[in-house]
Parts: sequence; C-alpha cells; structure tokens
Amino acid sequence: MSRTHNPVSDLEPFFNPKSIAIIGASQNYVKPGGRPVNALQSKGYRGKVYPVNPSHESINGLKCYPSVLDVPGEVDLAVVSVVAGKVYQALEECVAKGVKAAVIFSSGFAEVGDDGLAEQRRITELARKSGLRILGPNCLGLVNTTNGVMASFAFIVDLPETAEEKVLGFVTQSGAFGAIIYASSLHRGVGFNYFVSVGNEADLEFADFVEYMVYDDKTKLIGGYLEGAKDGDKLRRVAEEALEAEKPVLILKVGRTVAGSRAAASHTGSLAGSDRVYDAFFKQTGIIRIDDYTELIAFTPLFQTGKMPRGKNTAIIATSGGAGVTMADLCESLGLNVIPLRAETREKMDRVLPFFASSRNPVDLTAAVMTRPGIVVDSLRAVCEDPEVDIVICNINLPFTAPGHPIIQEFIDIYRSTDKFVLLSPFVFPGAGMDPAILEILKAGVPTNPNTVIAIKAISILAEYSETLKKRKRPEYRVRPSKSPKPDLSGLLQPGETLSESRSKTVLEKYGIPVTREALAASADEAVEKAGQIGYPVVLKVDSPDIAHKTDAGALKLNLRDEGEVRSAFGEIVANARAYKPDARINGVLVQEMLPEGTEVIVGVSRDPVFGPVIMFGLGGIFVEVLKDVSFRVAPVSPGDARDMVEEIKGSALLRGVRGRPPADVESIVDVILKVSNLVSDYRDSIEELDINPLMVYPDGVKAADALIVVGREKPV
Amino acid sequence: MSRTHNPVSDLEPFFNPKSIAIIGASQNYVKPGGRPVNALQSKGYRGKVYPVNPSHESINGLKCYPSVLDVPGEVDLAVVSVVAGKVYQALEECVAKGVKAAVIFSSGFAEVGDDGLAEQRRITELARKSGLRILGPNCLGLVNTTNGVMASFAFIVDLPETAEEKVLGFVTQSGAFGAIIYASSLHRGVGFNYFVSVGNEADLEFADFVEYMVYDDKTKLIGGYLEGAKDGDKLRRVAEEALEAEKPVLILKVGRTVAGSRAAASHTGSLAGSDRVYDAFFKQTGIIRIDDYTELIAFTPLFQTGKMPRGKNTAIIATSGGAGVTMADLCESLGLNVIPLRAETREKMDRVLPFFASSRNPVDLTAAVMTRPGIVVDSLRAVCEDPEVDIVICNINLPFTAPGHPIIQEFIDIYRSTDKFVLLSPFVFPGAGMDPAILEILKAGVPTNPNTVIAIKAISILAEYSETLKKRKRPEYRVRPSKSPKPDLSGLLQPGETLSESRSKTVLEKYGIPVTREALAASADEAVEKAGQIGYPVVLKVDSPDIAHKTDAGALKLNLRDEGEVRSAFGEIVANARAYKPDARINGVLVQEMLPEGTEVIVGVSRDPVFGPVIMFGLGGIFVEVLKDVSFRVAPVSPGDARDMVEEIKGSALLRGVRGRPPADVESIVDVILKVSNLVSDYRDSIEELDINPLMVYPDGVKAADALIVVGREKPV
Repeated sequence: MSRTHNPVSDLEPFFNPKSIAIIGASQNYVKPGGRPVNALQSKGYRGKVYPVNPSHESINGLKCYPSVLDVPGEVDLAVVSVVAGKVYQALEECVAKGVKAAVIFSSGFAEVGDDGLAEQRRITELARKSGLRILGPNCLGLVNTTNGVMASFAFIVDLPETAEEKVLGFVTQSGAFGAIIYASSLHRGVGFNYFVSVGNEADLEFADFVEYMVYDDKTKLIGGYLEGAKDGDKLRRVAEEALEAEKPVLILKVGRTVAGSRAAASHTGSLAGSDRVYDAFFKQTGIIRIDDYTELIAFTPLFQTGKMPRGKNTAIIATSGGAGVTMADLCESLGLNVIPLRAETREKMDRVLPFFASSRNPVDLTAAVMTRPGIVVDSLRAVCEDPEVDIVICNINLPFTAPGHPIIQEFIDIYRSTDKFVLLSPFVFPGAGMDPAILEILKAGVPTNPNTVIAIKAISILAEYSETLKKRKRPEYRVRPSKSPKPDLSGLLQPGETLSESRSKTVLEKYGIPVTREALAASADEAVEKAGQIGYPVVLKVDSPDIAHKTDAGALKLNLRDEGEVRSAFGEIVANARAYKPDARINGVLVQEMLPEGTEVIVGVSRDPVFGPVIMFGLGGIFVEVLKDVSFRVAPVSPGDARDMVEEIKGSALLRGVRGRPPADVESIVDVILKVSNLVSDYRDSIEELDINPLMVYPDGVKAADALIVVGREKPV
Repeated sequence: MSRTHNPVSDLEPFFNPKSIAIIGASQNYVKPGGRPVNALQSKGYRGKVYPVNPSHESINGLKCYPSVLDVPGEVDLAVVSVVAGKVYQALEECVAKGVKAAVIFSSGFAEVGDDGLAEQRRITELARKSGLRILGPNCLGLVNTTNGVMASFAFIVDLPETAEEKVLGFVTQSGAFGAIIYASSLHRGVGFNYFVSVGNEADLEFADFVEYMVYDDKTKLIGGYLEGAKDGDKLRRVAEEALEAEKPVLILKVGRTVAGSRAAASHTGSLAGSDRVYDAFFKQTGIIRIDDYTELIAFTPLFQTGKMPRGKNTAIIATSGGAGVTMADLCESLGLNVIPLRAETREKMDRVLPFFASSRNPVDLTAAVMTRPGIVVDSLRAVCEDPEVDIVICNINLPFTAPGHPIIQEFIDIYRSTDKFVLLSPFVFPGAGMDPAILEILKAGVPTNPNTVIAIKAISILAEYSETLKKRKRPEYRVRPSKSPKPDLSGLLQPGETLSESRSKTVLEKYGIPVTREALAASADEAVEKAGQIGYPVVLKVDSPDIAHKTDAGALKLNLRDEGEVRSAFGEIVANARAYKPDARINGVLVQEMLPEGTEVIVGVSRDPVFGPVIMFGLGGIFVEVLKDVSFRVAPVSPGDARDMVEEIKGSALLRGVRGRPPADVESIVDVILKVSNLVSDYRDSIEELDINPLMVYPDGVKAADALIVVGREKPV
C-alpha cells in the first residue's frame, strides 16, 4: 500500500490518540511496561487505556487483555514494550487490529548488529506496506504534556509539570540525554509541550516529528538533539517550512569534532554527514545550531515575549564597569554590536549619573544604584530613546528597592512602551536570590535571566534569527528552477567513469558554463589546423579519462606560439602520456586557447551520504590546498546562497580587487555555481564528483580552464 | 631618594602590617572610613589599629587621633579615606610619620579629567621621592584573609570566610567587579588569600602585586582582572618569575573587542595595547587568558590537587551517550584529544558492561549504573590502566549507592593510586543536590564539579598550563643576549626620519641580516658600472626617504638585462620620481641584483604603547593584506618563540613545501626574526617601525628584497 505523506494527520495518533494500548504492560510501575500505565493515569489522560499482557487480569485497576486483538474498542496508539523477538508479532497484531501508530520501546535492533538490523528492516517493511506508523524501536517514547499522553518510560513522565505556558516541542536522537534536557529545562521553568525520543528511526525519523510540530498550532518553537539526519532532503524541506511558519528550530548537533563524530556513529546507526556540511546546511536552512542545551532553555522565554530585535545594535547598562566591559566583549564575539551611544543619549544620562559613573556604552551606573535606584530607569529610558539601539541588556540590581516602589512600575512601563528588545540580566549576590524588586519586574513579563553569559548568548541567537527570517524571505534566497529544459547528457555520463577534460567540458557547456575554446586532435597535423582556428598562443594537453594529473605526466604544454611548437608539443605529449601510463585510453590531444592571467577559483561538487550533492567554492591553488578557505552549500542552491558562498570565504576580498587588481566578475561566478547546481541536481544520481579547477575569473566573465566529472557506478541507495 | 626594587619587602607592609592607621575613620561602619575599622576588629586582626579623625574621640572603642602624626607608636600601613583635596596633605603627614605604605580609597583623580590627573601626578611624585608605597587612589583597597588585614571598604570584608585552604591571590583593575568575583568564588568554596583592587595605579600597579604573590609562599596561584597593563616590561618579568615558580597566573583581560577596548579605556586611565598584542604576549609569557571568572574558580581546586595531567589525551565516562558525545565535542574544541581507547582497555570494559552500553570513548555506561554501580569503578580502572590516557572525566551519578558502600572507597582508591588526572563531573538531577555517594568521593579530595562545561574548560586550562611549563623550560625559550657587541648605528637613525631603502638595508646588514647586493648610482653611467659589478639581470629603484611606494611612482624597474635597459630605466625612474613628488629628496638610484623567485614573507616591527617593539611575521602579499594571517611577539623574542611565530600562521604549510615546491629555509627566517629582535631591542627608543617586505625565502637562505625603517621623533616616554 503506497501512502501519501501528510505530516500532521499521519502523526496525529501519536500526539492526540483517543485510546492507547500498552502491549507488555507491567504491574511494576518503574518497568518500561508499567511506567506509562501509571503516568497516563496520574497525568490525567482522558482517552481509553488498555493494558495488554496475557499474564495479568488487571493493572492499576484497568482490565488487562491477552492481546491487542482482544481489546474491545478502537486503538489509536500502541505502546510496545516486549522483548525484541516478540515485537514483530505484536506489530502484526496491531496491523490486524487497525492500530494507527505504534511506539516501540524495545531494544535489540540495529544498535546491536546485523541480526538486529535484519529484524528492524522487517519492521520498516511492515510499516511501509501496512500504513502503521512507527516511532522507535530502542526509544524512550513520546510525551504530550498538554493532554497527558505519556507514551514513554522515561523518568520524565513522573515529574510534576510546573511550567506554565508550554510552546516548545523537542525531538531527540538520544533518549537519556534528551530526558536530562527535559528535566533541566523544566527545572528552569521552561516546559516542553512535546517530547519525542526517536530511537532507531525504523519508520518515522527526527525530521518527521519536527515537521509535525511546524504544522501544530500549539508549538511555537522546536528544539532538537541530533547526531545525524537520515534523510537530508526531508530535513531541508522541514526547515524551510519552519522558516515559512516563523518557528525557530534550535538543534544541538553533536559530532562537531572527529572524536564526537566517532562516538555519534556508535551511538546510533545513522550515517552522519561531515560536520562542515552540516554547518553549511544549517546556514542555508535557517536552523540554529546550539552548542549547549542551556541555550535552548534561555532562548525560549525571549522568543515567547513575541518581540524581535530589529537589529544587532546593543546597549549595556551595568552596575559595575568591569562587568559591563566583560559583557561587551562577549556581545561582540557573538555578533552583537556594542555601539557608541548618541551624544543626546549620553547627555540625558550625564544629567542624572554621578560624576564617577560613565554614560559610555557599556553604561556604568556604579554602586550609586544602591542609594539612587532611579538612575536605572533614567538610563534605560535614555538608551531606549536612542534610535540606533536595538537591544538593551540591563545587568543591574535593586537591593534596597522595596516591592511596590514606583521605579519598579517605571521599569515595566518603559519595557512595555519601547520597541527595543530589553533583556534584564540582574546581578544576583552570590548565594542569594534575585532582589524582590527584580522579581516583580520579572513577573510583569520582562525577560529576565541572572546568568549573564547564557542570557547574552540567547539574545544573540534571537537577533541572528530575526536577521535570518528577513534575509531568507528575500526572493534571491528561493531556489529557482531552471528555465530551459533539462539538457540530455545521455551517452556522456557513463556509470563508473571519470570523464576526460574535453568530455567534462562538453557536459558543462550543455549547462551554459563558459569553457575554453578547444578541439581534439588525433594527429600533429590536425593539432596545427585546430590551433590555427583557435588562434595562437595555444595549450596542448592529453585528453584521457585515465590521466587526471596531466602536469605530473608531462602531458600538458602551455603557451605554444606557432606551428613548430605545436608539432613538437604534440609528439612529446603523446610519448609522455604513453610512458606515464601505458594502458591509458587516449582520446587525442586537446588543443585549447591559452587563457590570459586572471583570478583562479574552484567550483566543486562532492556527494554527501546524507545531503546528496554538496557544492564547494574557493579560491584556487594554495587557498584551497593549504588554507582550506572554502565554502559549502547543499544543492540545489539559491542565487542568494551562491553569492554568500563567494562572500563568506576569507579570501573574498581578493575578488573585490586588491593591490591594483580590478574587481573580479562575481556575478559570473554566481552564475556558474547556479548552473553547476542545476547540473548536479538534474543528474544527482549519476554525478558523484565534479571539479572546475581552475575557473578563471576576469573583470568581465569567467571560463572553465580545466574540469573533471566522476560518474557514480550505480544509482545511490 | 632613589630606591632599589624589592617586590616582597616593599609590599610587606600592605599584606602584613604590624599597625594600621585609618585616616578619615568613621563611626558609620558602612562608610569607606568606617568599614575597615569594623572589619579589622571582627576579622581578628592582631596588630594595632589607629583611627584618625579630628572630629572623634574614639571609634568602636578605639582611641581616635586628630592626625596620623599624633599616633603614639609606629604605623606600617595607612588607609586614606578623605576627600580628594585632602589626600596629599594626609600623605605628607604619613611621610613625616615614617609610614611605609598607604592605601588611598578616595576618588576624584585621573578618572575625572585633567585636574584630577595633575593632583594624581603630585601623589606619584611624592611616592617616588619619599619611598612611601601607595595603592590607589580610587580603589577598594586590599584584603589579607589569612591575618585579618581588611584595608578595604568593599562589602567583601563583611563576608564570613568559609573556604578552608586559601592559596589564591587576586589582583583587579575593577574594584566592583573584583568584589563580585571574590564573593562568587567564596560562595563556590574557593577563597582568596589576598584581594587587591589597584585603582588608578599612581604608584604601585597590577604587576607589582602579582609579583608579591609570586614570591609569597602562601600563594600558590594568582588570578587577575586586567583592562590594560601600565608597564609591559614589568608584567613580562613578573610572568616569567611566575613560570619559574610554577605558579599559574590566570587573567581575565577585557577589551578583546573594539567595544570592550573603548569601554576599558574609559574605565581606567590606562593605555591598553591592542588585543592581538596581548594575545601574543600571554602566549609568550605563559599567562593564561580566561574569558570568564568562573574558569578561575573551577581551575583552582584542580590545581590544588597538586596533580598535573601529563598530556591532553582524554577519556570520558558518561552515563548518557548524548552527554558523552557533547562533552567530547567540547573537549576537542578546547584542545583535549578524545582518543580511541586500546583494544585491551575496551575488552576489560566489555566484560562488565551490558550489551547496550559502549566501551568506545566517550564510554557510555547507560542507566545501568543505577542497578550496577560497580561498572563505574570497573570502567574507571580500565581507562586509568590505558597507558595512552592522561585525563579521565567521569560524568556519572550513583543515586542508589548508600554512603559507605564499598564502590565509593574503590573509586577513591583508584583516584589515589593512578597517575592519571581524574576529574569527577557528576550528573546532578536538575534541582537536586549531588548524590550522597558523590559527596563522599568529593570529601576524599577527588576534584569534583557538577558543571560539566566549566569543569572541562578548567581541566583543559590545566593541561595547557602543564604543557606550557614543560615547553617554556626548554632552553630555546630563553631570550639569548646577542654575542656580538651592539653595532653602532650613529648617523643612521635620524630622529623623525623614514629611512630610504638603501639606508634601511645598511642598518639590517649591520645586524647580519642578508640583503640584496646593491649600490647607489648618481648617474646612468654609474648605474651601468654598478650593474656590471653586481651582474645582470638587475633591478633599478629610486632611493628616497620620501617615496615609500616605488611602484606607484613608476620608480622601480625589474629584470633589466643589459646596459641599454639600465640606461633607459635610469632616466625614466628619475623623471617619474620627480614628477610623482617634486620635493622628494632623492639619494640616487639603487642598482640591485634581480632575485630569483622564492617565497615572499614579511618581518615587521611596530611599537606598542604598553609593550614597546612588537615583531610581526607573515607570508607576503595577499596573505598579510587580505587574510591578515600574521603572528606577533613582543621583543626580545627567544628562538623558540621565533619558530612558533613562523609555525603558528595558517599559511605555514606553504613554507614546508607544497605543490612540488621545496621546503623553505625556516631556520634562516628564525635567524632574521632574532636579529630584528636584537636590533629593535638595542634601539627600542629610536626605531618606531620596521618592515622587511618582502624577505625572499629560498630552500637555502633568505634575502631582504626591500626594507623600511621609521625612526621616532623623540625618545618615547
């Protein structure tokens, strides 16, 4: 049975089931089969709960059934908690019963080796053909805190749900660590509405649950712990939907380093793409990469204010100069600009501040706030009135300000009336709690976080997200489908072949990429004839799919100025190529225009196991080889991303013209990147690698001087 | 009176005074003049306390004197807390009384503008000529928690001193922020033995107090908050003494960014060197730069164990795979290597771990620790026995392990018997405290920090410090005085002059730096004659102190092959130079050997206001101009630092030979850097800037192709 994908309706039975069967239900409430039965009751789930276990008559006062087939009513969701060997049968019974969704706690599948993997593949097959959607196996399950659906055996189902407004959905590839994040978050007053531990992803994967939350009205933002995406295309589509819906997606993606990657590979069975590709992918899709889950926790209340910083210009108000400067350093390192305040802004503050304070940004109120708390609101008002300020961070305290004091209300009023993003990061005396006055301000809804470092990280993330939203909505960040019909490359892309330079260039030409004027010659006479047509000086190179490094082979001669030079070069090249690799297939000798000097860049493509074709851009030669100064994007790329690729490399200034050189034609580079993107998207199953190296760049155009395409042996799985 | 510097004895009266006078003593104990009187008594200071204030008969039961001159006995230390206008007179009385040291709380000096600065200069003068040593003005003063010397009005003097062993001295350029750091540290169980707020540094400065602590037996490590050093040389000497004494110096240096620098400049009157120079200086002197004071707090107990990691190879043991991977990412980003464990190490663990756990590094014990806590010690023992592991970080918990359980003692025994650095970063359930079993381990002296992020930062700092200690003790990291006598440059370095290329090279030659063969020619005939002597091809350039950019002026001709080319080039150069800058002084035309192609590097010097001559190294051309891929060190540099300068730039691989190029002669580059270091150290008061650009590097030597020296107008103050 083939099924049409529908992210919301397909997953609805997981999040809002009318009835839940627990297959392998236990009377011991700390066992995997016992915990959900208990938690569904204690958390007030209003649907029907059917324990299933042939050994019991009843559990927790609920009638227990020998099999799910014996359950009298309909079952939306089955929780499967039986040993691995019995899972398949349980699922078959679920299918027979017409169950819509199943959560499999059981471990002993892909994570334990080949036998487990084989058994897991059977489960995947069953899901595909039956339409039963599956979460797991080897997962902690799923929790919906808004309706008491506790389809999980994690300890988190027993935690009192103390947080008030819950709009944060969370998906995790690590069950245990995900549960720690859940508990830490709740402890800090940030509750999850949904928690999903995806386990081995035999059917539904990480991105599917993120997608559900994108379309779900109750979820305003989404967090995730990711070791490796299964389907890169799907995650990309979901990220784009999230941007469209203006729901931030914050992901703790581990495996940044070699050690991390190794461990992640062992932790799940997933094939992780390389970390640089993930970084590019996140940039391209607007997913926010976090380094620590505390950033997610701190970000959530800032986002929940509904306010967005208009820009990154930041003012800091502190009661200690040293703290202010330290905060300013951190702000700048995170991309916030601690700008000089306008003269009139400083004058307003100078009128009220004591002489030993400073109205420079970071503003230093000094300990004078103790006796004159009014300077806090006077300064806050002044910086909020500065038209260049977007964000105000207040690192203040009000120890001698009694609750109900008018300046507390003043602070709140300024917060409410300004369009600036005001963040309160109060100074808290070590070991003490927040001042009562600060607590009153907090209760009025002013975003407040006493951990200055994490508060600044969170606001910098929000400011970056605000920019990303604006940027990604611009039309140049939409991938444009090619206007021309897909060129026919049949006969050119032989499976398993490395194409010769001339054939590679023929492919590029079909996509409109400028290449050198050139022609193949089979004899010295023919080479002379072609050289005459192309115009001297010329270059001669062997054309062979088997000789990639022509210089090493002595099969490349530059700057040939006349017939005599061409003749002798032809003979040498053929002789050298045969000597270098006697069995090389030689198509002939390529006669090519000699390009003038220009800036050498490289446009390349490699195939990532998760994301498919990935495009790379860099400056040629040592920039790529020594400095690794390159940028990546996953294909297909938008014009905006192609331009970002060119601009984000460190050596980009070289293209803008330095040391008397004219600026390079960046638009033409962008055009080549887009055409390469079309090519590898059209032929993503065939092209495994592509290199235009160098692409010569001039003030008014580009030309591929050399090219190489590797065709995959077979369609990748 | 000229005085010989003695860091310990000079400062002894601040830290161990036999008697203290408080000038401007107050009966109100929260006032600056009242707090120390009160705190000296409450903290059990055993020396004599003399309140001085003409308005009172007695304060806190102590007899009060109208003037310090009326005090009957000797006064070691005076605390001055009177308005700015009365400070000078009070100090004069101190001098008359024979007081040895004074702390000035009063503000209203350099920080408020020119008048204050003038008054502060008088104080500096008084200190210089009298021998009275001064801390401040505009400071919070000084605290010695080991003997109750509370010469401070900061709130910290009222804090109960709960920490046990106090070996951490702290010096701060920000009083208020320093006090926050003090309180935060104490709250986390890390007490300071000394706290010094240096204020405006009219006499004694930041480095002086660090030096005292280096020589003081009670201090084992030193922390600091620094906005800008006053005397770079002194700080360098002190840092070297600290390395010698194996006392780590951890400094929170603010002003990393433009915004931070601006604010730091406003916060004190200090002239901060640029942040890149500070980074180089810290690298060179072994000072540890921290980003947040919590790193200092976490580092202290690790250092106090007396153990040092032998290397950076790290094993992680965690109870959650996700937490382990996240920790591994952080370790690697901080320079710790999360290495693959040996097969036998993994086998030992595999024998005890459940099948769903992982013995790969990071080791994932899973929630099985709940029921089988023994796997914690089994794993710990296994990784401690792995000869390649230097550091073990345990992110574990033992919730169901009762105090007194044998595995607690086992853990402690392994810790005590291994030479590996074992760090316990227990998992703590959000909102709960540490497990009783963990507390027992902690009490036995195992370094324990539940904040995993900060714990990993702290251990990475200790591992780096351990490497620095080893490295800096190697003889090549000692600055070697030049063996030859200081060359006489009289007549060459005219104040305020930019030296012409030929004169600059004459200076370099005197220091043994290889330069191009060349000679000045005043006429075309002479140019031809010199060219004949040098050998064709040659280069002709104008030689003028007023034309720095010869190419722009059309006053540089390369690759002249014969007499005819030399003659015509000579005429052109003279004409072009005159047209370019009619009033330029022209020494003649420089006839120079035409150098073969090589790798272009740059060796330069600029003068930093704090550190004096700073040497820069980089690859020539776009590497310096576009990528800013350069390294710095403060002169004089050691051979080891010179080599580090060459190796730490990103493009360094180019010098090792890439793309078929032979390796460059790095030793000769190092030699040039050392000779430049000698030159600018010998003439540090004259040479303001120096550029050898390019220095051509070959497989077997180097040659300065162009050079420029700028001589300062006057001796810098």
